[in-house]
Amino acid sequence: MTHPKFVNFSRNGHTGYGLLAGDGIVDLFARHGTKWLTLREVIAAGALLTLAEEAAGLQPDFPVSEIRYEIPVPAPEKIICVGVNFPDRNEEYKDGQAAPSNPSLFIRFPRSFTGHGQPLIRPPESLQLDYEGEIVIVIGKGGRRIPEAEALSHIAALSLCNEGTIRDWVRHAKFNVTQGKNFDRTGSIGPWLVPYRDESQLADIKLQTRVNGDVRQNDRTSRMIFSFRKIINYISTFTTLVPGDVIVTGTPTGAGARFDPPIWLKPGDLVEVEADGIGILRNTIADEV
Amino acid sequence: MTHPKFVNFSRNGHTGYGLLAGDGIVDLFARHGTKWLTLREVIAAGALLTLAEEAAGLQPDFPVSEIRYEIPVPAPEKIICVGVNFPDRNEEYKDGQAAPSNPSLFIRFPRSFTGHGQPLIRPPESLQLDYEGEIVIVIGKGGRRIPEAEALSHIAALSLCNEGTIRDWVRHAKFNVTQGKNFDRTGSIGPWLVPYRDESQLADIKLQTRVNGDVRQNDRTSRMIFSFRKIINYISTFTTLVPGDVIVTGTPTGAGARFDPPIWLKPGDLVEVEADGIGILRNTIADEV
Repeated sequence: MTHPKFVNFSRNGHTGYGLLAGDGIVDLFARHGTKWLTLREVIAAGALLTLAEEAAGLQPDFPVSEIRYEIPVPAPEKIICVGVNFPDRNEEYKDGQAAPSNPSLFIRFPRSFTGHGQPLIRPPESLQLDYEGEIVIVIGKGGRRIPEAEALSHIAALSLCNEGTIRDWVRHAKFNVTQGKNFDRTGSIGPWLVPYRDESQLADIKLQTRVNGDVRQNDRTSRMIFSFRKIINYISTFTTLVPGDVIVTGTPTGAGARFDPPIWLKPGDLVEVEADGIGILRNTIADEV
Repeated sequence: MTHPKFVNFSRNGHTGYGLLAGDGIVDLFARHGTKWLTLREVIAAGALLTLAEEAAGLQPDFPVSEIRYEIPVPAPEKIICVGVNFPDRNEEYKDGQAAPSNPSLFIRFPRSFTGHGQPLIRPPESLQLDYEGEIVIVIGKGGRRIPEAEALSHIAALSLCNEGTIRDWVRHAKFNVTQGKNFDRTGSIGPWLVPYRDESQLADIKLQTRVNGDVRQNDRTSRMIFSFRKIINYISTFTTLVPGDVIVTGTPTGAGARFDPPIWLKPGDLVEVEADGIGILRNTIADEV
């Protein structure tokens, strides 16, 4: 079955959202924008699936070629990222520490991401721009201390992330990866949101990252150290999750930093992050101008 | 001279902002709320000092006793915290590492803070609630790669923070202090915003934290490892600062974790964070209910 794909876009200088329909976009912002300003409000209203049904019978309003993809939830309250969540990732840190008993978490600001089809930006401060392909869950129903048994019912939608990282700035200070993870537009989220309906969409899907067609990361969600259920349960222990919150759930082994010598991304490269049932997130690389 | 004090508050179930005038509040939201919804918009318009002049001649609209203090910028794009920024703090980590050459940074969500006069909340997951008194700068003029020489001109206002921390959850995972710094309402910001006018307001002021009247932290900003100028310069290297962004600039030695055995905050305690020219931020402690 084909899942509906909700796109957040800009077009002719305006932002909007809609449903992908072949090579076109059914403009849902034009129909519902006064009620729901962004996909965040659509999610908060629990209206993704209703809108998908409504739009299924409609003709596209304009071709995809006219839009620029933006990150699917433009201003979430939180973007929380999980570190070290696939086998062999812990060893990549080469710090002699045992695998962690709890998820390592860090925060990214929305402006550290760009949309599908836009270049990731390599800043003049570093040549160490690296990729990390990840699966994104977007919270639909908020909550605190959400039990693992109920956790998946709090997911509204799925997406993908290239959790692009300035590797030397991750170790710039005493602890915390904040700065290496937050250079403007070094990562991407997209291409779209796929509504979450049941666990088969997440339980054992392939997650793959390719650079210029070469497979660099390739693993399955069934091998995650901390499950989607556990991640939602753990994060909601300390902070109240709200609709639209974005959780980036960790990357498989095989980032450019793992190679000897490391292979960093450079202008002209094409990075693709793909997961079964979600899609392919594509970005090129460009130097900051 | 007395600095104007801008208060963000809730009253009768509604939020607003105003200027403190003795025991009363001049209601600026009632006068300008349609133009500037929150103090963030006032700051973005560069209107703090103009509003202070306008309100200086007005009678208070209601007594302070009718308001609840809320955090001064209710929904900033970013709250960035600096770790390990006063002498002896590095040694408190007891990890044998040398002092860092760059500021350590982490992120807190607005919901991890409460306002002046509200209790900090000790969650059932831990008894290790600790205080950290800090000075807050709020960005007025945004920018990227702001030179140190110009950095202070990007500050709109000053405030205080009790950067309350769940100490055992700071070391819960492999790296990053995210979870120990983000339990809901474990910290506070306030009591108000004092507009920034010149460097004497920051260059060498006393910062003190008291618990039940006992002085626990006591230092001067002239001893900060990373100056306010350097912090703004460094952060804006990777992320674009925007009006209303909040930077929490680091705490002196003397947190409860430093004592042997450690002294954690408990219900009934009163914590006061005071800095010259800014004010006193007061919070009690309560168990989560």
